[in-house]
Amino acid sequence: MDIVEFEPEQYAFTFGGRPPQLRVEPGTAVTLTTEDCFSGRVRSVDDLPSRVCDLSTMNPVTGPIEVIGAEPGDLLAVHFAAITPTRDWAMSSTFPHFGALTTSHQTPMLHPALEERVWRYDVDVAAGTVTYHARASEFDVVLPLDPMHGTVGVAPAGGEVISTLTPAAHGGNLDTPELRAGTTLYLPVNVPGAMLSLGDGHCRQGESEICGVAVEAAMRTTIVVDVVPGAAPDWPRLENDDFLITTGAVRGLTDANRIAQYELIGWLADLTGLDRLDALQLVSQTGLAPVGNMVDTNFTMIGKLPVSVLGGRRPYDGVHARLRAAAGQLAG
Amino acid sequence: MDIVEFEPEQYAFTFGGRPPQLRVEPGTAVTLTTEDCFSGRVRSVDDLPSRVCDLSTMNPVTGPIEVIGAEPGDLLAVHFAAITPTRDWAMSSTFPHFGALTTSHQTPMLHPALEERVWRYDVDVAAGTVTYHARASEFDVVLPLDPMHGTVGVAPAGGEVISTLTPAAHGGNLDTPELRAGTTLYLPVNVPGAMLSLGDGHCRQGESEICGVAVEAAMRTTIVVDVVPGAAPDWPRLENDDFLITTGAVRGLTDANRIAQYELIGWLADLTGLDRLDALQLVSQTGLAPVGNMVDTNFTMIGKLPVSVLGGRRPYDGVHARLRAAAGQLAG
Amino acid sequence: MDIVEFEPEQYAFTFGGRPPQLRVEPGTAVTLTTEDCFSGRVRSVDDLPSRVCDLSTMNPVTGPIEVIGAEPGDLLAVHFAAITPTRDWAMSSTFPHFGALTTSHQTPMLHPALEERVWRYDVDVAAGTVTYHARASEFDVVLPLDPMHGTVGVAPAGGEVISTLTPAAHGGNLDTPELRAGTTLYLPVNVPGAMLSLGDGHCRQGESEICGVAVEAAMRTTIVVDVVPGAAPDWPRLENDDFLITTGAVRGLTDANRIAQYELIGWLADLTGLDRLDALQLVSQTGLAPVGNMVDTNFTMIGKLPVSVLGGRRPYDGVHARLRAAAGQLAG
Amino acid sequence: MDIVEFEPEQYAFTFGGRPPQLRVEPGTAVTLTTEDCFSGRVRSVDDLPSRVCDLSTMNPVTGPIEVIGAEPGDLLAVHFAAITPTRDWAMSSTFPHFGALTTSHQTPMLHPALEERVWRYDVDVAAGTVTYHARASEFDVVLPLDPMHGTVGVAPAGGEVISTLTPAAHGGNLDTPELRAGTTLYLPVNVPGAMLSLGDGHCRQGESEICGVAVEAAMRTTIVVDVVPGAAPDWPRLENDDFLITTGAVRGLTDANRIAQYELIGWLADLTGLDRLDALQLVSQTGLAPVGNMVDTNFTMIGKLPVSVLGGRRPYDGVHARLRAAAGQLAG
Repeated sequence: MDIVEFEPEQYAFTFGGRPPQLRVEPGTAVTLTTEDCFSGRVRSVDDLPSRVCDLSTMNPVTGPIEVIGAEPGDLLAVHFAAITPTRDWAMSSTFPHFGALTTSHQTPMLHPALEERVWRYDVDVAAGTVTYHARASEFDVVLPLDPMHGTVGVAPAGGEVISTLTPAAHGGNLDTPELRAGTTLYLPVNVPGAMLSLGDGHCRQGESEICGVAVEAAMRTTIVVDVVPGAAPDWPRLENDDFLITTGAVRGLTDANRIAQYELIGWLADLTGLDRLDALQLVSQTGLAPVGNMVDTNFTMIGKLPVSVLGGRRPYDGVHARLRAAAGQLAG
Repeated sequence: MDIVEFEPEQYAFTFGGRPPQLRVEPGTAVTLTTEDCFSGRVRSVDDLPSRVCDLSTMNPVTGPIEVIGAEPGDLLAVHFAAITPTRDWAMSSTFPHFGALTTSHQTPMLHPALEERVWRYDVDVAAGTVTYHARASEFDVVLPLDPMHGTVGVAPAGGEVISTLTPAAHGGNLDTPELRAGTTLYLPVNVPGAMLSLGDGHCRQGESEICGVAVEAAMRTTIVVDVVPGAAPDWPRLENDDFLITTGAVRGLTDANRIAQYELIGWLADLTGLDRLDALQLVSQTGLAPVGNMVDTNFTMIGKLPVSVLGGRRPYDGVHARLRAAAGQLAG
Repeated sequence: MDIVEFEPEQYAFTFGGRPPQLRVEPGTAVTLTTEDCFSGRVRSVDDLPSRVCDLSTMNPVTGPIEVIGAEPGDLLAVHFAAITPTRDWAMSSTFPHFGALTTSHQTPMLHPALEERVWRYDVDVAAGTVTYHARASEFDVVLPLDPMHGTVGVAPAGGEVISTLTPAAHGGNLDTPELRAGTTLYLPVNVPGAMLSLGDGHCRQGESEICGVAVEAAMRTTIVVDVVPGAAPDWPRLENDDFLITTGAVRGLTDANRIAQYELIGWLADLTGLDRLDALQLVSQTGLAPVGNMVDTNFTMIGKLPVSVLGGRRPYDGVHARLRAAAGQLAG
Repeated sequence: MDIVEFEPEQYAFTFGGRPPQLRVEPGTAVTLTTEDCFSGRVRSVDDLPSRVCDLSTMNPVTGPIEVIGAEPGDLLAVHFAAITPTRDWAMSSTFPHFGALTTSHQTPMLHPALEERVWRYDVDVAAGTVTYHARASEFDVVLPLDPMHGTVGVAPAGGEVISTLTPAAHGGNLDTPELRAGTTLYLPVNVPGAMLSLGDGHCRQGESEICGVAVEAAMRTTIVVDVVPGAAPDWPRLENDDFLITTGAVRGLTDANRIAQYELIGWLADLTGLDRLDALQLVSQTGLAPVGNMVDTNFTMIGKLPVSVLGGRRPYDGVHARLRAAAGQLAG
């Protein structure tokens, strides 16, 4: 299988509303680069994001990529074959009025904003590490590198054009560490060609991303895309070798979790023929429920069901295994 | 070390408001039994809980146990040495107006209640399995046995007496799978003697417990208790060999997660000397955030921080390691 | 009708768990006094609550009053005939870690607490005014006096003992301005004698009580109590000459509003014979939904339905009109 | 003052992303017509919305209207001079998976959808009434006509294009009964010309709009528009002769109320010179907090402050009084 190389000439800041930058057939592998969420403008601990960035340059994505033949109602499968940081550093920060534990635009408090502070991490791809350095004291921690994309999505339904800062039914800024290499993301196709975009690479991220910013990095990423006709999910789904994974992205973790767990139940029922109540029972005892983020304009909850309960069944005619195998051949 | 055996003559249905049933010194190991959340009345799939139980018999706990010398402001450490189902079956069910995905007393909808249905699991302690059987179709799944206690707590502050159905700052019905053997639970002492009670054993439980009921079982459990003077946490905490674990238990997963993550930040800062912002950053990139339950009167979120980021530091003068070692000798 | 005078010798700080301080027959009028939420300790702008009060003296209530013959499952009707401030001043304040727009125990943020500040209002009962004085600048506003009780409730069900700071199904700290003279409050009876307590008088209060504290005052209050057998509501209800009023008290205004509106629908359906969907429609177009408080341990939403839609029907055999008439004779 | 008549040739279903249909100078009065939220397709109780409508025809708006010279950062003032139903009937309904008390896309439950039912109201503009007829029993209620617009907004910031079903910072589907004649709405200008659109007339609506649908009607409406340079509010605001009114529109009434009350505090402080804490105190005792809607993709809370506390001060150089006077001359 050939790999299409795609180097973006400019970035997008919305899902929807933009002409395709690349057109590929289903089954194509694409290696592309993405810039970090700061558009690469935060490079030292003195580069305060609120000074060097503005909202119009936050969270650039590469794309959109038109997948030829994808039609509304289809499912777009995006397998992540590899995600590799392109620099030996990565940045994180606080940001005024942003985060889970601070006054914000949508959860305002009468406090002044938290201090804005920047952290610079050392990235060692060969060693598989990313190193934290405290700012106010001497304290370093070497952490495992665990690259992922925070933002992957398609053009929304209904003619909407949505900021790359928002996660929703079209994907977008889901900000879950589950979106790492080896995983297949399933998105609904809302417009002809799907119009896939991605960016917001993280060297790693905790569940919740509470300060609002992960270990942000430019990435070189290889994906393989495919289309499953008529199988559009209501909400983005993921699959890896061990888990079926659902997402719910609305404001309020309670409702986000309702969506993610409800999606697990429906998915399990569809695959196994269990009725809804029997599926509810099995998910209640085996489902996992980690937070994705609780800082974006919508919050993301993740539902995970071990594939071991499926008795060998796999969704979408085994597209994940097929794309994973294709990706393996690329690496070879 | 000796083990005190404690067989309850009657069960309690509240935290607070009851005289001690047992008095032990700090450092004591106690082996006790607990009944399941149905008071053992649901034994077959025909025993609908709403018919065979009433609210006055739901969620019995064994206790309270007075820990001699424990004073308000102290921390009570409860190490779980062993949790073993006492029967070769366990029960789960739906329950009308109860659960995360149904109309309920506190999230009322105009729908009639979901169907009430009971599932009976086979428990094989030697094999370490618990087996699910679907009710409406032929479908069985053998699952790993992973015993835990859903409800462990002390007498509340302020003279309150709280139902065993509620999780809050005093512990109670936290319903997190983290409360398994090998783990130490830290609770605040609010009244002299702490007045520890526990029950609600689960053979296993998913994160969220969305149907409202886990795989419920009577247990034979060994704990070792200890007291750390003046170290009462604001919210229940746990520790095992790999993680510091915090809890937040209020209604609404968003606020529950705020509490759990805020607690992680404070705990990390206290242990390492990091300032709050540096601790926020490190938790943002390394913290985990699974749901405990979203069905009880309060919901429970869990925060987890890998001890690998602590550079060898451990909280409360290493009480977890000490109790774990003591528990190991018991087993020996 | 005679009026029983009741001067409390000591105050209570919980609902439940206390012997009756007064016993009265249904139909009795009682004139009693209540202390303010600070136990009268905040008397000047220099009396910071966190210094002069502690949690064990916050929100005293007068009672409990045993209503002879009231049995679990009955409805206790409490008509407020008069609520009059007993002093010519009243106090308000901020309080660290308390309020809707500040970091708090249950919605923690990484900010330091807001400044603690006290306001002293002038109360003129004859003129019907209460006067606000700004602290940091010269700015005074004369406001209408609108006395109410923030906290009225009965002993909870299930043997629970609940702090007077909490609103819930037993009533308690509902903190709604609807609880003024001329209104009848309906509470479920959970224990023999109901065990009614009340306190937390406010000279007035905005909807939400966002700083956490109203215009707090000691009151001299006359109530008339009655019992309606077997009519216990699920949640506290109120009635005045113009509105049926429901309450929902849980954390999260969304669920609290679900409860309040659901209660309106059920109440309307019960009174008119409308089916649930027709009642939903009529409430959707005529119901009101003001916030009570969003600062207490539970938040309170209020549902209001104009009695004009009832075609002359009134609930509970007209107990409100009957008690209102009795109260009118007292005044005469 | 002249009135521009504007009869739309086609409707819009988004805010943003459309060329202007009309261009007017600031100070212009415009009389326009709007279609109801069903695009006029629901005309009898047998016209189930899910059969006769689809999402692409839900909630049409008239516009956009370009206001010449309005620039990003300015405030657009829209005074409602008159709102009059154009037919002698109006429609309401339930809608599957939509509403506050039913399983929905964003609060999924395992129940089947509620029954879809349509209600047809009689509208008598001369008498000022709108009459409800129950469907499942004989029960009619004559209600006051209280016309309002549910949906009024401008093009969003950041190049976003947002469905007319959503309320947010740009206005949109706020669904509050406060948006009636005699009121001035203040919106932020995000793009040159502001691009104002409006629709979704309601003959009346309860606070919360719990079934998801008000008494929906086509309207003939007169507005007067003006621009206040540099005064863009963060969230939509309203003003009438008696109240300053704020809005907060996010999912979750708790955060929506935080926004609305926070906005009241800031507005009061700006107008009076009170510091934030003194303003918090005054709003705490005088502010009102009714729900707008809790059914749309975002929920809307309303904050209301009586102008009597302002000591004669009015915002934006008295633009409300000026536009109200201009509107009065139109009527003459």
